Amino acid sequence: MAEKLRIIPLGGLGEIGKNMTVIEYGEEIIIIDAGIMFPENDMLGIDLIIPDYNYILDKTNNIKAVLITHGHEDHVGALSHLMQLIDAPIYATKLTAGLIKGKLKQTKIAGQVTLRTIKAGDVFHVGSFMIEPFHVTHSIPDGVGYGITTPVGLIVHTGDYKFDHTPVDGWPPDFAKLAEFSQRGVLCLLADSTNADRPGWTQSEVVITAAFEDLFARAEGRIIVATFASLISRIQQVANVTAHHGRKLAITGRSMRDNSRIARELGYLDIPKELLIDISQANGLAANKVVILATGSQGEPTAVLGRLATGRHAKLNVEEGDTVVLSAHPIPGNEEMIYRIINQLFQRGAEVLHEGIANVHVSGHASREEMKLMINLVKPKFFVPVHGELRHLIAHSQLAGEMGIPEDNIAVVENGTILELDEHTMEVGPRIPGGYIFVDGSGVGDVGPRVLRDRERLANSGFFIAVVSIDDEGTVTGRPKIISRGFVYLDEAGDIMKGAEEVIVQTVRASGRNRDHIYKRIEGALSKYLYAETGRRPMVYTIVK
Amino acid sequence: MAEKLRIIPLGGLGEIGKNMTVIEYGEEIIIIDAGIMFPENDMLGIDLIIPDYNYILDKTNNIKAVLITHGHEDHVGALSHLMQLIDAPIYATKLTAGLIKGKLKQTKIAGQVTLRTIKAGDVFHVGSFMIEPFHVTHSIPDGVGYGITTPVGLIVHTGDYKFDHTPVDGWPPDFAKLAEFSQRGVLCLLADSTNADRPGWTQSEVVITAAFEDLFARAEGRIIVATFASLISRIQQVANVTAHHGRKLAITGRSMRDNSRIARELGYLDIPKELLIDISQANGLAANKVVILATGSQGEPTAVLGRLATGRHAKLNVEEGDTVVLSAHPIPGNEEMIYRIINQLFQRGAEVLHEGIANVHVSGHASREEMKLMINLVKPKFFVPVHGELRHLIAHSQLAGEMGIPEDNIAVVENGTILELDEHTMEVGPRIPGGYIFVDGSGVGDVGPRVLRDRERLANSGFFIAVVSIDDEGTVTGRPKIISRGFVYLDEAGDIMKGAEEVIVQTVRASGRNRDHIYKRIEGALSKYLYAETGRRPMVYTIVK
Repeated sequence: MAEKLRIIPLGGLGEIGKNMTVIEYGEEIIIIDAGIMFPENDMLGIDLIIPDYNYILDKTNNIKAVLITHGHEDHVGALSHLMQLIDAPIYATKLTAGLIKGKLKQTKIAGQVTLRTIKAGDVFHVGSFMIEPFHVTHSIPDGVGYGITTPVGLIVHTGDYKFDHTPVDGWPPDFAKLAEFSQRGVLCLLADSTNADRPGWTQSEVVITAAFEDLFARAEGRIIVATFASLISRIQQVANVTAHHGRKLAITGRSMRDNSRIARELGYLDIPKELLIDISQANGLAANKVVILATGSQGEPTAVLGRLATGRHAKLNVEEGDTVVLSAHPIPGNEEMIYRIINQLFQRGAEVLHEGIANVHVSGHASREEMKLMINLVKPKFFVPVHGELRHLIAHSQLAGEMGIPEDNIAVVENGTILELDEHTMEVGPRIPGGYIFVDGSGVGDVGPRVLRDRERLANSGFFIAVVSIDDEGTVTGRPKIISRGFVYLDEAGDIMKGAEEVIVQTVRASGRNRDHIYKRIEGALSKYLYAETGRRPMVYTIVK
Repeated sequence: MAEKLRIIPLGGLGEIGKNMTVIEYGEEIIIIDAGIMFPENDMLGIDLIIPDYNYILDKTNNIKAVLITHGHEDHVGALSHLMQLIDAPIYATKLTAGLIKGKLKQTKIAGQVTLRTIKAGDVFHVGSFMIEPFHVTHSIPDGVGYGITTPVGLIVHTGDYKFDHTPVDGWPPDFAKLAEFSQRGVLCLLADSTNADRPGWTQSEVVITAAFEDLFARAEGRIIVATFASLISRIQQVANVTAHHGRKLAITGRSMRDNSRIARELGYLDIPKELLIDISQANGLAANKVVILATGSQGEPTAVLGRLATGRHAKLNVEEGDTVVLSAHPIPGNEEMIYRIINQLFQRGAEVLHEGIANVHVSGHASREEMKLMINLVKPKFFVPVHGELRHLIAHSQLAGEMGIPEDNIAVVENGTILELDEHTMEVGPRIPGGYIFVDGSGVGDVGPRVLRDRERLANSGFFIAVVSIDDEGTVTGRPKIISRGFVYLDEAGDIMKGAEEVIVQTVRASGRNRDHIYKRIEGALSKYLYAETGRRPMVYTIVK
């Protein structure tokens, strides 16, 4: 029986195949990307989420390469975890490699990882695979997709992409390479589905420059632009317009400063030194000479914009006359925090512009017309929509169906599903158990659903713990010690505390000398009492000494 | 000195003047609306939020009337709290009064409240005020705004409105009344700002019918429509299209069933009895004969749609072939939950349509062109944007400015700000301390920022409590008892527990016989140890016996 190729989209939360893809043939494995996701609002206390790559852990010797598409966190953020477990080279383009190096520097595996710099258009071999990175446009420069010639046929993975004819760095997508792939015959296309519900064609990054030019011409005070720290091309655009209007630029926020420094060093960001000032110099300049680039466009309270909104920034105060621009799209779940910050900035007298009311952001992902172009350029036999939530994958699969790809040749699958391909067939295999792994503090995977359920209960009503001493006669001695937090404002709840003590004394008395599970009976009585008094259900525990 | 009129927008969270407005002249007070808001995602454990109406509490005898604009929760939901404290009649139109009666029935003040039914076009007097409710169109029938002739002049409050020329109930807004007000001269307009950042004109409810007709014609299986329980006109539209396509309608979800029953009884919903089935009958009919109206359009996990998405509905399973329609707009903060439910429904094989991809919802609020029409119809001397977050109020005020209302005649204020008017001037007075009040379980106002901060810490990392016995020699006796939840999965954290016990023993030993604040020293040492082990900061307490 001939060997089959296995493709396994992995990881992520909600989005499918976003953070990692495993490609396996015989005893050879290639991994594409290793990214993180951020938790949803009800994943309490979780810092970040990494793919559950359990599948490859007993095959680590088979892993031949980790191919990276671009430098965004959701594609490289888990490398610091993954590379502790495997020993394979990372392949990435120059900017992406620079950003990865910057991140690995902060970990204990710095220096132990082999990082091979590639460029779009290269052709190289890894085991039985021939790898051809091709240039794509996205919201960070130097992004690539991969053509991977396997023993069963050519697989094309788009990475994150849009077809931007006029990107900020002047380097359009490599249409010729895609057409060449299709001439050679593409067995399977894995394509970015993020915007599968957006009709039309995503606007070029170039429209942002026009919007900024207009906005800078009108602004009389300082201009504060918040965007993603990794949106290098946006940083370039702001720098260009800043220079054009005779202002100076301060880049703030650690991640944005780090990324800008790396991108400048590697030649992906062209900002003359004279244009840049430190944030501490901004207050010494006339307001109409200052532009500030800031992190915090997703409403993160501890990032620069969040601190500015609440007046907690050490060096800068937002004032009347300032113009704040949110040059970013809210990631679902962040809307509430972002609108809160917008209101707070208005409260301080600033003018606030955002995507909803001005043309200050465009997506980095292809819309439906671009998706059609991708499919028609590549002409794959099999089609696997990836990158996006299930709803996006389904929309993308319907689009592919409308374009003539037979339904049986399209696989909409969830993370961990094994796709098996040979020259003629694609089969949807079993789904590997497990999904994603929570990272909380320094713990990886030690917080699961049970701990989260406890956190949810604590978040709703707090806890109430009583330490009770009972003598041999079955009588409470002394006053029970009570510790409670998150339940009720204790300073004003004296009656409830007194009532709880009374409940304890009576429960013990009613039990006489029967001390079997007396703590359980006290807990039951306390829970009932506290619910009757407040309508809340704190976690109740009793320790009997 | 002549008496001034005071207008005080109150209550709500984020939105200003949304839930309550106080109008005061001398010793007479009128209240417009008494609604609730739902908490934001980081207001842990809070059930709902009511306006902080402390200002009127020592003047309850002055309150002459509570005027209600329409029957939505954010305008009537706090009546059950407010009416416990004051003794004034509620004025509401027929449908609104019916809905209020339904809600008060569930409270202890049922029967004690005077509810006066009014209708649009009425003129009545309350103390020195002449009150003229006027018909507006909104996403619930029988809505009104109020013209209030006060001793200093005519105040017009729009309530929630849009200018829908073709509403489902065939009753267009009362343009003539607004024009008449302007002829008499309007001192001040308080106007709905919800959509102040939406250009153009909000679509008429009538477009929904076309979209539903189209969708019903194509659907081959069951159709499940989720919408707001109070969106009576949407329920009417679904019923009409259901009848037109020879299907039967099941209305599910307690609030939607209650509202539909009341609206039918009062003649605001025209659904023949034969059209309706109970949800338990739905499974007995052919799939293409069934339509189900459901609650849960905001992603609430315990509402009908949430239970369907996770397979927890007792009588219904979503299956391949079903079409689910979310006929609602996500309230900011709910997007994540809504998208999760959409993905879950897709997972079950349903086709899911929502506002983002089909024309299945229109807003109930005026867009910018309607706002301009309102201002030009009413021609007020002073303008106060209300209903909306600060960002909307500012956008609305800029629009009013562009239309020629002098900047000094426009007041953008926050909740609790006292506006003082006479015939010629409007002054922004002081802001009353306080904002909104949390309701948690049966507690009103007993959970504040301190309890919420504790809940946030508990939500992030849980708690860790040690009960330690120390003998007179200063030695730990027995093993410390440890209770911990939400911190780490205890079954797999034996090492950490052992380490913590060791930390306790060593800390006590190092303290010798000095037992002053020994619990503090243990807590400090434990916190440090747990952070070093896990990178987390649970709440740590120690009880020394």
